[in-house]
Amino acid sequence: MSRNICIFQNFLTDAHKAQIEAAAAETGFTPHFFTESQFEEAKACLQDYSCEVLYAQSPDLLRTAPAALKWYCASSAGVDYYCAAPDLFANPDCMLTNSNCYGVTISEHTIMVLLMLLRHMPDYEEIVRNRGWGDQFPVRSIRDGEFTILGTGDIGKTVAARLKAMGAAKITALCRSGKSKETIFDEVLPISELDRVLPETKVLIMALPSTPETTGILSRERIALLPEDAYVINVGRGTAVDQEALTAALNGGTLAGAALDVTVPEPLPADDPLWSAKNLILTPHISGNLTLGYTCDTNVAMFCADLKNYAAGRPLVNLVDRERGY
Amino acid sequence: MSRNICIFQNFLTDAHKAQIEAAAAETGFTPHFFTESQFEEAKACLQDYSCEVLYAQSPDLLRTAPAALKWYCASSAGVDYYCAAPDLFANPDCMLTNSNCYGVTISEHTIMVLLMLLRHMPDYEEIVRNRGWGDQFPVRSIRDGEFTILGTGDIGKTVAARLKAMGAAKITALCRSGKSKETIFDEVLPISELDRVLPETKVLIMALPSTPETTGILSRERIALLPEDAYVINVGRGTAVDQEALTAALNGGTLAGAALDVTVPEPLPADDPLWSAKNLILTPHISGNLTLGYTCDTNVAMFCADLKNYAAGRPLVNLVDRERGY
Repeated sequence: MSRNICIFQNFLTDAHKAQIEAAAAETGFTPHFFTESQFEEAKACLQDYSCEVLYAQSPDLLRTAPAALKWYCASSAGVDYYCAAPDLFANPDCMLTNSNCYGVTISEHTIMVLLMLLRHMPDYEEIVRNRGWGDQFPVRSIRDGEFTILGTGDIGKTVAARLKAMGAAKITALCRSGKSKETIFDEVLPISELDRVLPETKVLIMALPSTPETTGILSRERIALLPEDAYVINVGRGTAVDQEALTAALNGGTLAGAALDVTVPEPLPADDPLWSAKNLILTPHISGNLTLGYTCDTNVAMFCADLKNYAAGRPLVNLVDRERGY
Repeated sequence: MSRNICIFQNFLTDAHKAQIEAAAAETGFTPHFFTESQFEEAKACLQDYSCEVLYAQSPDLLRTAPAALKWYCASSAGVDYYCAAPDLFANPDCMLTNSNCYGVTISEHTIMVLLMLLRHMPDYEEIVRNRGWGDQFPVRSIRDGEFTILGTGDIGKTVAARLKAMGAAKITALCRSGKSKETIFDEVLPISELDRVLPETKVLIMALPSTPETTGILSRERIALLPEDAYVINVGRGTAVDQEALTAALNGGTLAGAALDVTVPEPLPADDPLWSAKNLILTPHISGNLTLGYTCDTNVAMFCADLKNYAAGRPLVNLVDRERGY
């Protein structure tokens, strides 16, 4: 009996499909492709072919997979939803991998909103919308600037590399262990040092997965520790920030500005106070989506590489610790 | 009789003044400081002390300077206005220097608007203003991208360094000579190659001084040579672009978008069609102003270095060819 893979993705080009077909043929698998409008067909495929592997971004489809499923490859980087819901997996030993291929696109988003904050771009946009010609706001620069990054994963290190290339003076990164093999950070500290670091932070960039430990990490008390001229950027998960406290700090002028690409909930309800918070650049979770060719190509390449590992019985490179949450 | 310098600037801090005083004392000069609200006092100083040197950004004040003035140091990078009006100088041999210290701040502006164009940020801002949650527009990346830069000066090379650090695949630069000592560009071509380069250009970044040769360089015919998915960014001088043709191309969809920090005239009149051009990020000539500490510090350091050159009879590093215009 042949071994089967169910693939349920909208972003795949013909070239991507050919690449997956080649990797599958090489390893003795048969791939079955479905777009996200073919939910019932994909569900039937999982059952009918007792698929071992599912490459998707769909908790709903995962829930329908039989116990034969041994590996679920999520095309997202964040897998908090899967880790928090073990009942999604009929096979309790099913392996979960994620796709850490969003560093480039999220870092470009981060540099963009960072420069918009430092250079008062929303103020200038407002002036120009009213056909005015601008007063000159004081601007700040990435060059010679200091940055604090929460999270030393793919996003944190890719953002750090761009900040350094633009002349950043110092980058302090914090992560659970306080250790990183990356040399791009000037210092790496454990999260337990956060309260000491915040009062000296000029720009806080948050790129954390959502786990029980990161939920609410930027609490009301910690927002109050930030200097009045500090900026906060969150491109990780909305759960990390006390949104009510952040909104109050922005409106009260005890924080210079913020850029949030992630919120709780998403989409944000029409009456949420965040919509009208002062000096906030809000974007609808777009920093890391699958609309950039490079991101899509890398996503497929990571899946194919781990398919070869899976077939050969080697450890999967992108394996997630379902208990730890990343 | 002592030798005198008139300084007419608003941006100087006490530290900057102390730095200028030290350089002046070392070279046997006496500096006289005025803010831009002290026009009459500065004018009287130029006369009463027969100042040899004026450090300012004021054609009006320069016009009042006596023939004793031997060196006018403009704190701006662009000096087209001074070069076009020889009657500003009572002494026809008066040396003119400019201050090429805007590369860092203008390059950060350029990277910001470039990412905003590539990532459809104005569209997302519009969605969020209406409290909507966004469709996902296709985004483009600096990584693996190709860029054409007009101008190989301080701005062009500083922008190129940032693009390269963010993974740009190829940077083609064009300048009058077709030669540059900078190695950051993948190729440097003479301006005469522009018509050949434009049809292959994805992003055109213009950082040219205003001279008779650069006026109207991005003509209607050349705008038509750009592909429909191309973006144009101008951070040089507004005179370089046929604004009417650019507006028509944007509104007609034959150009994907543009970002202009410079226009003709400035400020833009209230009824100018540019205000409502599609996919245009318009800013009121803010990319290179003296509101960034690094820029101000470098401006003063360049003046002090050339003051020492001047006192020693050495050539001035930032000397402008008044005929050539830069």
